[in-house]
Amino acid sequence: MAPIAVTPLSPPSPTLDNTSKLTKAGAETILSKTISNGSPAVADLDASKLIFTRNLSPKNVVAPNSPEVWSQNYTSDHMLTVRWTEQSGWEAPEIRPYGPLSLMPTASVFHYATECFEGMKAYRGFDGKVRLFRPERNARRFLQSATRIALPGFPPEEFLKLLKKFVGVEAPKWVSEPGQFIYLRPTMIATAPAIGIQRPREALLYVMMVMMPSLGDPSAVPPSVTASAGTGSGQAPEAKRLAAAGMRLLASRHDMIRAWPGGFGSAKVGANYGPTLVAQGEARARGYDQILWLFGDECFVTEAGGSNFFVLWKTAQGRTELITAPLGDGVILEGVTRASVLDLVRRTRPDVDVVERKFTMHEIVQAADQGRLIEAFGAGTAFFISPCSDIHFRGVDVSLPLAKGVTADFARAIRQALKDIMYGSQQHEWGVVVEEEKI
Amino acid sequence: MAPIAVTPLSPPSPTLDNTSKLTKAGAETILSKTISNGSPAVADLDASKLIFTRNLSPKNVVAPNSPEVWSQNYTSDHMLTVRWTEQSGWEAPEIRPYGPLSLMPTASVFHYATECFEGMKAYRGFDGKVRLFRPERNARRFLQSATRIALPGFPPEEFLKLLKKFVGVEAPKWVSEPGQFIYLRPTMIATAPAIGIQRPREALLYVMMVMMPSLGDPSAVPPSVTASAGTGSGQAPEAKRLAAAGMRLLASRHDMIRAWPGGFGSAKVGANYGPTLVAQGEARARGYDQILWLFGDECFVTEAGGSNFFVLWKTAQGRTELITAPLGDGVILEGVTRASVLDLVRRTRPDVDVVERKFTMHEIVQAADQGRLIEAFGAGTAFFISPCSDIHFRGVDVSLPLAKGVTADFARAIRQALKDIMYGSQQHEWGVVVEEEKI
Repeated sequence: MAPIAVTPLSPPSPTLDNTSKLTKAGAETILSKTISNGSPAVADLDASKLIFTRNLSPKNVVAPNSPEVWSQNYTSDHMLTVRWTEQSGWEAPEIRPYGPLSLMPTASVFHYATECFEGMKAYRGFDGKVRLFRPERNARRFLQSATRIALPGFPPEEFLKLLKKFVGVEAPKWVSEPGQFIYLRPTMIATAPAIGIQRPREALLYVMMVMMPSLGDPSAVPPSVTASAGTGSGQAPEAKRLAAAGMRLLASRHDMIRAWPGGFGSAKVGANYGPTLVAQGEARARGYDQILWLFGDECFVTEAGGSNFFVLWKTAQGRTELITAPLGDGVILEGVTRASVLDLVRRTRPDVDVVERKFTMHEIVQAADQGRLIEAFGAGTAFFISPCSDIHFRGVDVSLPLAKGVTADFARAIRQALKDIMYGSQQHEWGVVVEEEKI
Repeated sequence: MAPIAVTPLSPPSPTLDNTSKLTKAGAETILSKTISNGSPAVADLDASKLIFTRNLSPKNVVAPNSPEVWSQNYTSDHMLTVRWTEQSGWEAPEIRPYGPLSLMPTASVFHYATECFEGMKAYRGFDGKVRLFRPERNARRFLQSATRIALPGFPPEEFLKLLKKFVGVEAPKWVSEPGQFIYLRPTMIATAPAIGIQRPREALLYVMMVMMPSLGDPSAVPPSVTASAGTGSGQAPEAKRLAAAGMRLLASRHDMIRAWPGGFGSAKVGANYGPTLVAQGEARARGYDQILWLFGDECFVTEAGGSNFFVLWKTAQGRTELITAPLGDGVILEGVTRASVLDLVRRTRPDVDVVERKFTMHEIVQAADQGRLIEAFGAGTAFFISPCSDIHFRGVDVSLPLAKGVTADFARAIRQALKDIMYGSQQHEWGVVVEEEKI
């Protein structure tokens, strides 16, 4: 086996080196951080230390719903990064040009799924202001997820300050038009090069912004995307159907369970997502958009794809009821949109009973058979409020009124009420205005 | 917020760029791979295409059980890499200098735990030959894990050919002395820069070799490591205690489970490891080495840390029985060492009944109370056969005879029999000789 070829490989843009601070810093740096009383100075996350490094090769903003946007990989010019080591704690946060990360092949995140994330959006309001939606909830959950997966903790309010700074820098260019939004992806990964199964000693917190299509708006789907429907590997077909005719759900098989009490289903950790891709692929291949995740012999309804799941029905007693799975046993994610739907309906709809309890697929089938099923919808940041048209449950097809052309007025009203807050048409404490900076 | 500092960051050695083949290759390359009948040529994994790029800055081999070895991050000079894209399939495999990986921040592996791995060892026999131990089982399981986490499949025999080539290149320098071994870590990660939750369209398969201390040999523990015991964050203290006095296990709490039926506990995917680190940290802080993972209200015994778990006891009827949790419900890993222990004992010990069935912590407590508990041990590649001295189960301390100074003769005999095969003292089909190449 003689040498055949040398492949020169160099990253196309400045790479953020995470191959090990420890290795490079060495003992001297660690010693220099030792303060007078002899205990090492482990720094907490501190937004006031923020460093800004401008991207000198900025990108163009592409048109809303253009093919680049549908790729869901069109990021803004910068990213926010903060490195952490066990010895020194959190380093100075940095807003720097968006670019590759460099890690050693032994990095914990590649082997042990030591990673967590958040999903958020920044909205350009019709009053010209940029808002985040209840961001303190995401910051708190980000901390909870990090803690669950043995990544370092941080004061959530410091993280939120940094996030606002980052949004404030990028928004003038990247969310310039009223009614636009951009997706935010806070992420934390364990970077320490250590093959042992152990608590990570080095980590990277980073946030990037990704342009996303206006899901839920049928006019937003470009013809080129429509043509690619059926490949089964992207989200575009799903988004199209969702926008046009409602979400079609395939109830999970008995032998495919997303989460379990005592597991980690309530944390936004990578480990909840990768293992669902096979089932999701099967659903797509059969013409469904998402898996409706059931749990247990009782077939309890938990989540729909990566969203929380709500049903609006008439009870046998004739009351109108909005029902969703409860928190508490750690099986479902405590969604920000979920909480907002519950709050909103409780405050504004005295005619609707709001119930968080375990409920089963059999109850849904019975309600459908008895003509009591009104609406069902997924609720989450990425897909927002997505009305459901059909559920296939082990040989039984459950059709929602939406499938027969009845508009999902309840879901639509919730969507509008939340949009009014997100885009500043209604002043509300959930819509948190971000101060912008021209750079 | 004015620019404060620019931090120049460059990787210390050639970086393997995985930021996206698609982006760089573009449509032309894809078109050029379209063969005459119009369907794209998707290449399968092919060991005959192997490319070798020599490391021109080779490292020193450090002494066995030196501090570098205890860091479990001291790798050999090269790594084996193979890239895959949905469009083109598997590229030419390459043995190249060990160095950093470069990925986009949007890479699937950072968000959705789209990753899997294997753990193996290469042994330098006392006959001078290098062997792998039942490597076809690792190759098959690697494929199963990849498939479970929606990563691309491959012919396991081609992977095995590549692995042997890699070992053949590195072994002369890195496993030079009879009785030595080196740890192999085959890994696959989803590299595609795509924020959507979808089946990965690009992946990287890589294998690295890591020097590891001789666990299980008390003389192997250097004083510096002994002194660091109690930090709770490394594996050294555990290894020390394991080697010296047997493994101390803390039974998992009711609200912390590792895996569940219908989940992915039987696949070697990252998602099974990160979520256990918090519990593992608690165990270490309380002076235990590993968690003994229980499942269900019945407290079924499943795994010990990252190893399978065996108990040797006398039954109430006076028979000697070796018992371990069964495969089938997908909760435990089908360990290569597990299978080998079962096979070996079944073939060589007619005096011992070998049983694979669900058994509970209560049965262990009862056996201990009645003086029927003989031995217990973990079985896995990394920690091999690790006799257990103590189990703490919700307020009850179960002591094995090992804790009272009785040697674990049964575990020791198994260990020796397997070692004899691994190091060629006994010729056996499980020990697969690897042809070496001087480079």
